[in-house]
Amino acid sequence: MSDLESAPPAKAVPNGMPFPSFDLPLPDKPEIITANLQKLVELTPNPRHKFIFKALTKHLHQFVNETSLSTDEWMAAINFLTRTGQKCTPLRQETILLSDVLGVSALVDAINNPVIEGATESSVLGPFLTEDAADVDFGESIASEGKGDYMYVEGRILTTDGEPVPNAVIETWETDANGFYDTQYADRSHPDCRGRLRSNDDGRFGYRAVVPVAYPVPGDGPVGELLSLLGRHNMRPNHLHIMVEAPGFHKLVTALYPEGCDYIVSDCVFGVKKSLVVSLKDVTDDEEARRLGFPRGGSFKLLQHDIVLLTEEQSAAIRARVDEERGVITADKH
Amino acid sequence: MSDLESAPPAKAVPNGMPFPSFDLPLPDKPEIITANLQKLVELTPNPRHKFIFKALTKHLHQFVNETSLSTDEWMAAINFLTRTGQKCTPLRQETILLSDVLGVSALVDAINNPVIEGATESSVLGPFLTEDAADVDFGESIASEGKGDYMYVEGRILTTDGEPVPNAVIETWETDANGFYDTQYADRSHPDCRGRLRSNDDGRFGYRAVVPVAYPVPGDGPVGELLSLLGRHNMRPNHLHIMVEAPGFHKLVTALYPEGCDYIVSDCVFGVKKSLVVSLKDVTDDEEARRLGFPRGGSFKLLQHDIVLLTEEQSAAIRARVDEERGVITADKH
Repeated sequence: MSDLESAPPAKAVPNGMPFPSFDLPLPDKPEIITANLQKLVELTPNPRHKFIFKALTKHLHQFVNETSLSTDEWMAAINFLTRTGQKCTPLRQETILLSDVLGVSALVDAINNPVIEGATESSVLGPFLTEDAADVDFGESIASEGKGDYMYVEGRILTTDGEPVPNAVIETWETDANGFYDTQYADRSHPDCRGRLRSNDDGRFGYRAVVPVAYPVPGDGPVGELLSLLGRHNMRPNHLHIMVEAPGFHKLVTALYPEGCDYIVSDCVFGVKKSLVVSLKDVTDDEEARRLGFPRGGSFKLLQHDIVLLTEEQSAAIRARVDEERGVITADKH
Repeated sequence: MSDLESAPPAKAVPNGMPFPSFDLPLPDKPEIITANLQKLVELTPNPRHKFIFKALTKHLHQFVNETSLSTDEWMAAINFLTRTGQKCTPLRQETILLSDVLGVSALVDAINNPVIEGATESSVLGPFLTEDAADVDFGESIASEGKGDYMYVEGRILTTDGEPVPNAVIETWETDANGFYDTQYADRSHPDCRGRLRSNDDGRFGYRAVVPVAYPVPGDGPVGELLSLLGRHNMRPNHLHIMVEAPGFHKLVTALYPEGCDYIVSDCVFGVKKSLVVSLKDVTDDEEARRLGFPRGGSFKLLQHDIVLLTEEQSAAIRARVDEERGVITADKH
């Protein structure tokens, strides 16, 4: 391709969408702006998108109207959103964190993951999942030595009928004893306190980890400023993230919260559900610790928890029922 | 300061905000998440911030509930907002553009700038104002030669009593004949088609410019994708931006829209108001063109328009009345 062909166009190029066939009166009061916008949203070809943007623009304009938002406040919001996007890197997702502290992530999670009695409930994804976790064999460690107190995690991946789900992919991640995920260290050279494993033929999984600790979500960005403005603490209770995928099953994004942490009842991202609070067993058996592969031996905490997946079919059925109860247009919902 | 002192903290540091004194029940249904969030918003120390965030979180959660937003749709929104922030540079403001096409900028503008009969109405700021415009003397040009058809702009800055406002700072910017602002050229080396001037002792201003053309807002970013998704064209009618500041007067952000453009009744950012549509006079007098300083002489368009400012007092009074009619908490509003 020659330089000429790759040069930007000499004239600004319209997007080619047609001129609307209806009149949009010039606004002599604010309501006309909203009415014009709503008319334009009717042009949206996809019915699901149209439904979403009708609701979005309605609430957005109602918000501005009800607060009589000042120009300076609007500009502060523009700057806040811009800085939030710009704080994101391949290893940090400030926009998800914003959604988390405003309860949006938890609400989306709750709406999309209704469960049948006995199935494992979901929890918020959070901003710390990465794509570079190492594969970890059964019984191996996801954390390098010295990252915290020993914890052994084991359980089974099961169907709601109690049948084992073999070969499920389990992604798991957590803080170290300092309350940091690996991605929060400026000198991160490799993934740590995270790993990817698979359930065996009996649906079992087991791995070494460290006891996660309660920690503040990152306070050095726009979301940190927001929580301070709102007078809200930025703590999360300690927890272990677990995400499970298996063919034919609804993807489960969840976390387990060891009981006893004060912040369980005051999680700044609204992630805890009662069924996800687990007890850690104290094991003070040096021999057993060494057998499981903990290099210093001594004692460790044992987290035993089975994870029960819904099939795609079960999940779709219950979600469809919930959507119907809510009366939403699910055509083309994806 | 030693390296030790400047090193990041070894442990994650909480923001120090207190633990709330009320219970936040663990959610077994989505409504509890919203209720918990609303309780937390009550902690906001500043009453105006509290008012804003109560409205914001209410509408945000209602939107998610009404649409039963799917996890994939939520993730698409997260990515969209992240990319919008990341598209911004010191010379490009994609977040303002997003606000513009969703009618939020126009609505904020309309709410904050009610006018008294006879005063010049406001229009949206848009994303193309820069801070580096050159100072331009009376009669000089804001555009370099060859940027478009000649246009001479003149008028007076006046009070609502018809008194001249001398020494007002007038910031003005526009597209060239290609439909581009200077900031849209990758090889921009200096500001063009923009300038900063001052009214003289009689309140008069005058400058050479080019006839702006209708143009598409930038289509190569997330906002361009959004308009295509919505089936909306991305055109704005041609216009000349004018922003006026003078001590004791309410800052005016406006634009003038030459009549005759199709897009006046279908502006993709909802900026046009009837009183801002102006007529351009054809002047086909070579001598006059040369006298005004147009190097090629020939003909030019003449835009004559007086700008009437509200005093801070007049503006505050009418805004307070509007806020009262709307019943909003304006304590600490800034």
